[in-house]
Amino acid sequence: MKIAIAGYGNLGRGVESAVKQNPDMELCAVFTRRDPASVSIMTPDVPVLPMQSIAEYEGQFDVVVICGGSATDLPVMTPQIVKHFNVVDSFDTHARIPEHIANVHNAAKASGHTAIVSAGWDPGMFSLARVFAQACLPEGESYTFWGPGVSQGHSDAIRRIEGVLDARQYTIPVDAALEAVRSGENPVLTTRQKHTRDCYVVAQEGADLARIEREIKEMPNYFDEYDTTVTFITAQEMLEKHSAMMHGGFVIRSGQTALGDRHVIEYSLKLESNPQFTSSILTACARAAARMCARGEDGCYTMPELRPVDLLPQSLDEIRAHMI
Amino acid sequence: MKIAIAGYGNLGRGVESAVKQNPDMELCAVFTRRDPASVSIMTPDVPVLPMQSIAEYEGQFDVVVICGGSATDLPVMTPQIVKHFNVVDSFDTHARIPEHIANVHNAAKASGHTAIVSAGWDPGMFSLARVFAQACLPEGESYTFWGPGVSQGHSDAIRRIEGVLDARQYTIPVDAALEAVRSGENPVLTTRQKHTRDCYVVAQEGADLARIEREIKEMPNYFDEYDTTVTFITAQEMLEKHSAMMHGGFVIRSGQTALGDRHVIEYSLKLESNPQFTSSILTACARAAARMCARGEDGCYTMPELRPVDLLPQSLDEIRAHMI
Repeated sequence: MKIAIAGYGNLGRGVESAVKQNPDMELCAVFTRRDPASVSIMTPDVPVLPMQSIAEYEGQFDVVVICGGSATDLPVMTPQIVKHFNVVDSFDTHARIPEHIANVHNAAKASGHTAIVSAGWDPGMFSLARVFAQACLPEGESYTFWGPGVSQGHSDAIRRIEGVLDARQYTIPVDAALEAVRSGENPVLTTRQKHTRDCYVVAQEGADLARIEREIKEMPNYFDEYDTTVTFITAQEMLEKHSAMMHGGFVIRSGQTALGDRHVIEYSLKLESNPQFTSSILTACARAAARMCARGEDGCYTMPELRPVDLLPQSLDEIRAHMI
Repeated sequence: MKIAIAGYGNLGRGVESAVKQNPDMELCAVFTRRDPASVSIMTPDVPVLPMQSIAEYEGQFDVVVICGGSATDLPVMTPQIVKHFNVVDSFDTHARIPEHIANVHNAAKASGHTAIVSAGWDPGMFSLARVFAQACLPEGESYTFWGPGVSQGHSDAIRRIEGVLDARQYTIPVDAALEAVRSGENPVLTTRQKHTRDCYVVAQEGADLARIEREIKEMPNYFDEYDTTVTFITAQEMLEKHSAMMHGGFVIRSGQTALGDRHVIEYSLKLESNPQFTSSILTACARAAARMCARGEDGCYTMPELRPVDLLPQSLDEIRAHMI
């Protein structure tokens, strides 16, 4: 299976390394919007090519894994690239997923390609956990908790405050809320009761720390509805203690079957590297996209619309004998 | 969607009640091998009919959920009934699943019906957890733990010992083993290190308790490889404290992505009633079987071969907007 990567940041590097764990796959090219000569990748003998030339390679790769941001990159890149290739992306702006699917679907159908969008762990594995839990327990409540882990968007928001040189924001699920959900009580939880936000900030020398702390804690949408702590640290401490991109979370559903028995379903992830794990899932989805296109299943799909066995290199006989 | 039930024990009653939680479904008939006049069901106005007449009703139900035992019932019933209807079963003898699939597949293909076999939580949801975890982390180790919960097979084995009136066996996962797996150490665990077996036994008056205890603990395959405790109780205690059919378990995979970051994936269930929860899943699979047959996807499938969205009554648009 011939794989190309479009976009070479943390995710692109993740897909590049994930391909090595999948012996049925081969990395054939990396496309970048930067000057290709300035991009050095980990795999020898794989060409780095200009993004604008990607259409010229039509027919040469089975799947292009698009590794861009959801805010501005993927809404443009995915509908463009699917005109020429099967694609996978990790579009994760939940509210805009239906719109993104519609855009990609039309382009995919017109060209006979298969797109798998919003792949990763949330959306992705957590979407699957929500779908399965709902199917097992039609009457109940589902809860999603994130963390402990670094939120890139919230870290960026802090960095935009005047006087801030660097920042790292950890989203932390509240233990008491997790326990209440696991107990099967189906609690009603406010935003504040579910997660806290811990911020580590490197400030400019002489900056007004009280003002920075206040601006963080009062920032609408990002922090004002949460219990937030702000800790000022040195650039050295940031480097030593906060470079890991750990993340994870929990999807829990509790509910009852029709005679009143109560049940709790829990799916959880504990990840040392968010982009490495996400990329590993994108790579498995690339396999599914190629198989679906080969079967004539063109158009745009999300992970709960795929047959799970299509994610694995093992044959159906092997899966039935050893994994069922 | 018109549902019939073949076999009316704990599972059959579970499907009967689960249908009430699924507004797109209607229970149309219950088939039994007992004298139908002797079987009273919970739903008014639904006929109880003799099992041997089931073929006469061909065309009248969308799906028959077959609620029989895996040892002798399902290997015969499922390939027979699929000649006339779409079917779902919970065949759970792991080693014989490929053989069961082959038998059912031929009959299903010949008649153009869809069968979903080995549905439930293990096999079923736990099979899915193993397939997804393997897809996310190709390099790693998967572990399945069962319990705390009642094992029917082990309880039956104790009841066959001379001098035993009643018995209940609980399978208990060993906390230290669970913690070692969750820590990501990928431990090598023996059977004894993963689970213990707690037995509650009602003995005949005057029975040799020491002999009964020894026979249990030394029973090959069932108990000899486990740390087993035996507690003798009264019939009254058995009724009061050990009537619940609680169960559950854990599927955990830990592994690393290609740059060495470590990740842990965990799926767990805590169930107050094993048959009620299993039945709820069988009922969701009935929906998928009907849809697949309508699309011309006949033959025999297991849960990781289905599109997850086919388990839900919600439309694809609704799922994409609210659950991805």
